[in-house]
Amino acid sequence: MWGVTTPPRASTALLTDHYELTMVQAARQSGTADRRAVFELFPRRLPAGRRYGVVAGVDRALDAIEEFRFDAGTLTALEGVVDPDMLDWLASYRFSGDVWGYAEGEAYFPHSPLLVVEGTFAEAVLLETVLLSIYNHDSAIASAASRMTLAADGRPCIEMGARRTHEEAAVAAARAAYVAGFEATSNLAARARHGVPSTGTSAHSFTLLHDTEADAFRAQVQALGVGTTLLVDTYDVNEAVALAVEVAGTGLGAVRLDSGDLGLVAREVRAQLDALGATGTRIVVTSDLDEHAIAALAVAPVDAYGVGTQLVTGSGHPTCGFVYKLVAREGDDGEMVSVAKKSTDKHSIGGRKYALRRRGPSGVARAEVVGIGEAPADDGDDRPLLVRLVEGGEVVGRATLDEARARHRASVAELPRAVTMMSAGEAVIPTIFED
Amino acid sequence: MWGVTTPPRASTALLTDHYELTMVQAARQSGTADRRAVFELFPRRLPAGRRYGVVAGVDRALDAIEEFRFDAGTLTALEGVVDPDMLDWLASYRFSGDVWGYAEGEAYFPHSPLLVVEGTFAEAVLLETVLLSIYNHDSAIASAASRMTLAADGRPCIEMGARRTHEEAAVAAARAAYVAGFEATSNLAARARHGVPSTGTSAHSFTLLHDTEADAFRAQVQALGVGTTLLVDTYDVNEAVALAVEVAGTGLGAVRLDSGDLGLVAREVRAQLDALGATGTRIVVTSDLDEHAIAALAVAPVDAYGVGTQLVTGSGHPTCGFVYKLVAREGDDGEMVSVAKKSTDKHSIGGRKYALRRRGPSGVARAEVVGIGEAPADDGDDRPLLVRLVEGGEVVGRATLDEARARHRASVAELPRAVTMMSAGEAVIPTIFED
Repeated sequence: MWGVTTPPRASTALLTDHYELTMVQAARQSGTADRRAVFELFPRRLPAGRRYGVVAGVDRALDAIEEFRFDAGTLTALEGVVDPDMLDWLASYRFSGDVWGYAEGEAYFPHSPLLVVEGTFAEAVLLETVLLSIYNHDSAIASAASRMTLAADGRPCIEMGARRTHEEAAVAAARAAYVAGFEATSNLAARARHGVPSTGTSAHSFTLLHDTEADAFRAQVQALGVGTTLLVDTYDVNEAVALAVEVAGTGLGAVRLDSGDLGLVAREVRAQLDALGATGTRIVVTSDLDEHAIAALAVAPVDAYGVGTQLVTGSGHPTCGFVYKLVAREGDDGEMVSVAKKSTDKHSIGGRKYALRRRGPSGVARAEVVGIGEAPADDGDDRPLLVRLVEGGEVVGRATLDEARARHRASVAELPRAVTMMSAGEAVIPTIFED
Repeated sequence: MWGVTTPPRASTALLTDHYELTMVQAARQSGTADRRAVFELFPRRLPAGRRYGVVAGVDRALDAIEEFRFDAGTLTALEGVVDPDMLDWLASYRFSGDVWGYAEGEAYFPHSPLLVVEGTFAEAVLLETVLLSIYNHDSAIASAASRMTLAADGRPCIEMGARRTHEEAAVAAARAAYVAGFEATSNLAARARHGVPSTGTSAHSFTLLHDTEADAFRAQVQALGVGTTLLVDTYDVNEAVALAVEVAGTGLGAVRLDSGDLGLVAREVRAQLDALGATGTRIVVTSDLDEHAIAALAVAPVDAYGVGTQLVTGSGHPTCGFVYKLVAREGDDGEMVSVAKKSTDKHSIGGRKYALRRRGPSGVARAEVVGIGEAPADDGDDRPLLVRLVEGGEVVGRATLDEARARHRASVAELPRAVTMMSAGEAVIPTIFED
């Protein structure tokens, strides 16, 4: 479905920072650009109070790697940034290394090595900015979305936040929310590009456009059928509900509430609908919902949640704070050397990592195990977390959105039950560094 | 500079919500789609504690209006969303109405009518989602950036947040920050597409790649000249500063500090640089800066601020909460009727607005004046805020980024001095509704 709208398969090479290119230019001159290097993309910590995170953006990152090419227009734009010799080198750039990573939808914890990128320094460092952009954004949305779908406890969540975030971030957000269990989106580009089911109700402007609310409801039912969702809070909710059933009949699909005390109003509307015989008519609520508001509505007769602002802004944590650090590189003698910045406040651990999700006898996750070097032989309790995504420059680790959704469900189901707590707390499993 | 990379001039028509299209389908069937309509894009309030906001994204919104066309691929993607008759109508869609708005870079306040969109209901409602996406994102960034540049009080701020936000949002963020007084960006796509000056230093990975810090510094100076910025906190800061001056000489451009107590370390480094004779070498600081951290560094010998995460996430307010509401529409008799949703918690005021910035005798802004209908004759103290952006479907209100930067400076300079207070507070001028 690529190419239906804006960018996805255009060059991603300029979605990067100036210094990535000048560093490579300098390393080429000093003879270090071709040293083998291992970079790791990881979180130093979870956002304050969060008990787990969810990886998203993997497939988009693979697209970005494939399309990280410097075409003629791109090279022209870089005149003055790097020298002509470097422009020549960029013209033939393509990533020819290897990438391993957590699969899309997987839960993560502090220091989970979400991506391991191995190649020459020059090849691997150039991908830093765009990989971080995609992972930091998409995982922030998926992490918030996952808490919302847990709080909704089986009731469908619908993503409707496009209008509250950058227009392209909105498309990625709809996709990430779908990975983390949302059922649908309002966003048509997410439907077209990623196959996320789209859905919609109507806006207050549609009611206000008509001379009467009855005119508006009739117009909508005539055009979209009785299965549609009528917005009932433009004027008086109880009058609108009565009118909605009068116009659409008891087969009316749903009504939407977008203001007021949603729990209270939902109860009144449910009673009214039932009294009118519209027992199958669903109640959809919207209006600045977050995971806490969703949890608070658990006892209300609500059938679906429409979530906007708080979803697309990561419910207080719009970015994950992932970093991309050199953890090992070739030395003069051709041997790989572990490296790390020596800073007290920005902790990194040198060396190429493996990662396992350790489970107890009942299958419940007990720890995130991170170690350096080769993973120990599997004893059945340790689920390896790194899968091969790119091999010799070729993408080999694509997964479908349905697979990512299934992985999210399985990964969260495996976590200790404290994962469903919406209160602030510690990570539900510790990260253990193993020698 | 369009077309250098990804999307800007591709169709924007799918960057919209499902219900916009189904509403138009229903309105076409009910005969109301062609009613004249006036929509208004406005904030109900400022983010909590903020004293003013800054409009950005205007020029990007004009692009989005121009490219809001349904080409063949787009229409194929909409099969199943709307009926074939509606697809035919969409195929010839183009916005033929009028748009007025606040110029890019202008300050705004609660209920400022930032955009007034007039056309048929069908034409104008379709633009809702994409206009809100652009304004909500870009203005959130510009509003945060403006506080940062005020706090920096003349010292340059450099945008480096690309890695912490969606890869396309990053480009828009760099642009919006530039509107609000930032001097440069790390983002190469922002340079290529929008002409924002780009700049860069180097990363810890560059130092770690080399066998010694001295090797890394020599490589960078050789490739990029002594005017470059050397990163001095990979190992020991004082040793690195001594080494930097040894390698580059006293003409070294700058050193960057990215960890620790920046104020304290900057003082030590300044003293050390001066003692070494490198009195012209500048000190650039980075590391999770926001407007408060910048203000706190006012007394430190810092020459430039690199700002990342907090800039691209709007410093706690990643979206503005702008809404797009129908405020007037044609009635059965052809007369325009003011309309507004009757909801206690989501206040709107019907009718088409004018807006003026009222100044006192000294030229200092005293109020945001919003009224319905025609603006009163200017008495010299009231600066009209709405400029014509689109006329009969043609974009007529383009401004350059330099013009937007100049407008931002002038607009903020005109506000009461409390605007520079970084503490939480009320809007620095009240919004007055005038009859």
